[in-house]
Amino acid sequence: MNVKFVFRITALCVFFTSLFMIAPAIISFIDSQMRNGFIYLSIAAVMMLFSGLVFILTRNYKPTFYAQEGFASTSISWIIMSFLGAIPFKLTGEIPSYIDALFEIVSGFTTTGASILTDVEALSRCNLYWRSFSHWLGGMGVLVFLLAIVPTAKKEGGSGIFLMRAESPGPSVGKFTPHIRQTAIILYVIYILLTAACVILLLVGGMPVFDSLCIAFGTAGTGGFAVLNSSMASYSVFCRGVVTVFMFLFGVNFNIYFLILLRQFKSVFKNGELRTYILIVLSSIALIALNIRNMFGNIGDALHHAAFQVSSIMTTTGFASVDFEQWPAFSKSILFILMFIGACAGSTGGGLKVSRVILLFKSIWKTIIKTLHPRKVHIVRMDSKTVEASVTHGVNSYLAIYCVIILTSFLIVSLDNYTIGTNLSAVVACFNNIGPGFELVGATANYAHFSDLSKIVLSCDMLLGRLEIFPLLVLFSPDLWSRKR
Amino acid sequence: MNVKFVFRITALCVFFTSLFMIAPAIISFIDSQMRNGFIYLSIAAVMMLFSGLVFILTRNYKPTFYAQEGFASTSISWIIMSFLGAIPFKLTGEIPSYIDALFEIVSGFTTTGASILTDVEALSRCNLYWRSFSHWLGGMGVLVFLLAIVPTAKKEGGSGIFLMRAESPGPSVGKFTPHIRQTAIILYVIYILLTAACVILLLVGGMPVFDSLCIAFGTAGTGGFAVLNSSMASYSVFCRGVVTVFMFLFGVNFNIYFLILLRQFKSVFKNGELRTYILIVLSSIALIALNIRNMFGNIGDALHHAAFQVSSIMTTTGFASVDFEQWPAFSKSILFILMFIGACAGSTGGGLKVSRVILLFKSIWKTIIKTLHPRKVHIVRMDSKTVEASVTHGVNSYLAIYCVIILTSFLIVSLDNYTIGTNLSAVVACFNNIGPGFELVGATANYAHFSDLSKIVLSCDMLLGRLEIFPLLVLFSPDLWSRKR
Repeated sequence: MNVKFVFRITALCVFFTSLFMIAPAIISFIDSQMRNGFIYLSIAAVMMLFSGLVFILTRNYKPTFYAQEGFASTSISWIIMSFLGAIPFKLTGEIPSYIDALFEIVSGFTTTGASILTDVEALSRCNLYWRSFSHWLGGMGVLVFLLAIVPTAKKEGGSGIFLMRAESPGPSVGKFTPHIRQTAIILYVIYILLTAACVILLLVGGMPVFDSLCIAFGTAGTGGFAVLNSSMASYSVFCRGVVTVFMFLFGVNFNIYFLILLRQFKSVFKNGELRTYILIVLSSIALIALNIRNMFGNIGDALHHAAFQVSSIMTTTGFASVDFEQWPAFSKSILFILMFIGACAGSTGGGLKVSRVILLFKSIWKTIIKTLHPRKVHIVRMDSKTVEASVTHGVNSYLAIYCVIILTSFLIVSLDNYTIGTNLSAVVACFNNIGPGFELVGATANYAHFSDLSKIVLSCDMLLGRLEIFPLLVLFSPDLWSRKR
Repeated sequence: MNVKFVFRITALCVFFTSLFMIAPAIISFIDSQMRNGFIYLSIAAVMMLFSGLVFILTRNYKPTFYAQEGFASTSISWIIMSFLGAIPFKLTGEIPSYIDALFEIVSGFTTTGASILTDVEALSRCNLYWRSFSHWLGGMGVLVFLLAIVPTAKKEGGSGIFLMRAESPGPSVGKFTPHIRQTAIILYVIYILLTAACVILLLVGGMPVFDSLCIAFGTAGTGGFAVLNSSMASYSVFCRGVVTVFMFLFGVNFNIYFLILLRQFKSVFKNGELRTYILIVLSSIALIALNIRNMFGNIGDALHHAAFQVSSIMTTTGFASVDFEQWPAFSKSILFILMFIGACAGSTGGGLKVSRVILLFKSIWKTIIKTLHPRKVHIVRMDSKTVEASVTHGVNSYLAIYCVIILTSFLIVSLDNYTIGTNLSAVVACFNNIGPGFELVGATANYAHFSDLSKIVLSCDMLLGRLEIFPLLVLFSPDLWSRKR
């Protein structure tokens, strides 16, 4: 493997992350918390020095870059970013345990939104900002950001697509344009515009400026960190409505927005993943609203909270408008199943992704046909394109490894001796990057009560979920480190 | 589809089932419960008449028989046997609701052992016998029995293998001999000998004759229906030890016993599935014994109960030696995971089967290798034979459809408003043909409190689990009924 190139990319990642630490420093100074501000600045300075040093040491790198290098850069960057990003929480003393701090920032970068904080409001605003901003950065991906910002020289031309594939979610990555840098820029422009629209609408709804920014970051990255202990429950109905709509929008494949920009409305309407996504969201809202209508004064309120919660869980955001732990088991089971499905591929959401679920059903159907008519040739199609056998097999293997990781994590977390519902939903909520689960990790609860071992396992699950398993798994392959090319 | 041939096979199945109803009738007469005895005899007589009629009506059948027909005969036979087998419970008045009676007999035939009875001991002995005997019949399969008994004429030669494939569990069916009838006979001879050995050892341990028979049926079929409310808790340590060993033995692929008969010990020792099965059982026992040692006076008792429960759950039998609901979450989680793995293919046990789990891990490893080296050819091997790609894909699809069925059933059962742990473990315990789950369906609990809808869904899950999904699914394919050959 081309270790030097991998280190260079990691260093670039660290450098850009350090730049983003200046904003919380400024917030500290405005709040006249000089100490916190200097902590952020010092950490940023050390990160810059460190990345500069790596850059100098790897001057004579070779420009060969393939899938292996893409996976390795992505996973190493994410792990190092997490370790560094947790330091401010620890040094400001607001999260005394480093493992807790690490859990919190991994939950941030991976857009999970699971928290170990029992009192979010006790955090100073710089830490609250950093926590929410990590959602925004992790949502679209810091390597995609890097691709958009850093001009790639011709000799490094091949590297971009491997980085993008490793960091972007979904069974296959679409390029809008033949140039990967242009694709990355378009993605970030759409991302920034949608986030800005969300901020403006929240401000119109009367939300304070700081809250609007943080909530918009959490919505855009489909993260779910809030700035109030009540999550979204104490904001106005209008603000919750705005967040409902934007969570839904950020769960859509960004290719769709690019198609809209190109005015290819026909392709948008015909998109199978989008249609299935809308269908699942609408039918889940209807079923839950019917199921919970007796808990609210009128069907309107029931619809409002059902829509908020479905949008929040399906897009793997994890905001709560109400304590859905009190809902009947049927509604909770719908939410539980939505946790697995997740958002669309190519969105900022997590989970299995709608397109994977569609492909799973199509491959099930294919197997049934094959069992009945062993000699019949059956071709899987999606959006009237043939899906290659390797893609459906890949999706099936993904499900297998997904189940193995869930069951293994569940086994380790069960050492803490909670109920099956708590342990399983904690693992599922972290692995699918959602945040809240059920029972002891429900809407109004948090992850503080877990042991350090469980917190580490759940942090790994969040990373595995965000990077879709393979980039991290290949780190453990001895193959990766021994082979020289 | 060759409907006439399918009906003939179903009629044969019904005929043999009716013969087996004579034993409970005799037990009734011995117990001087003449009414119950006549009920069993009348039902048997009606079933014989019915099957005779079908036989006469389908005289001019054609001998074409393929996978479709195999699936259809198997699933229709199992469904009709269940509907008929439930009638004695209802007519004797001991299970007043027909849906409950159906649940109980489906649970019997599918060797699940989940019961709706709150007081097992209140049942008369004829019904207790019929309930336990259904495990024995369903364990090896009534169609396999039919293949062993009915001489197949030359022109029908092809039909046997399709029937056996449809009814026998596992990713691929091995034939001991080129003749399917001989294979079926050998299977039943091994099955009867092992059951007899179990009965004798239980008698030696001082268990009453009737109990020994019923417990041996439940052990042989890996079913789990007991004759006492305390399941196995009130028998001697020796008897529980015998059952522990025999549950383990009936969870082994019967091919292994055939190899032992042929003195091919080398192949036995090299068998990958057997080695993995033993490894999983031993390590689970060790982990659980360590975890529960403080609950018992000494490590010996802890090992005894750990071994019994691991053997019972892994082989999907479902007997209980102790209320494992009281065990720590870690031990329960191990049992929960064993529920999914299940016994070996070609045994009487349920679950995913050890060989499928091995193939899943191998295909995961293949996917990782392929991701790292897209051009490398990686061949999956098992017991030094190449596993065809179609088998690994089949296993992967099986997992996908398995997950879909679990989640769908979980959603419907959740309408009863119990906890996630109860609902999920009920579905998992029924679908994998185990019996007891956790929380409200734990070791000392039962399924009586579920609604009729849930009982029907769980009955379907038991059938889907026993027949490994496809035979039943293809019944819903319009294709199956329209095509004429």
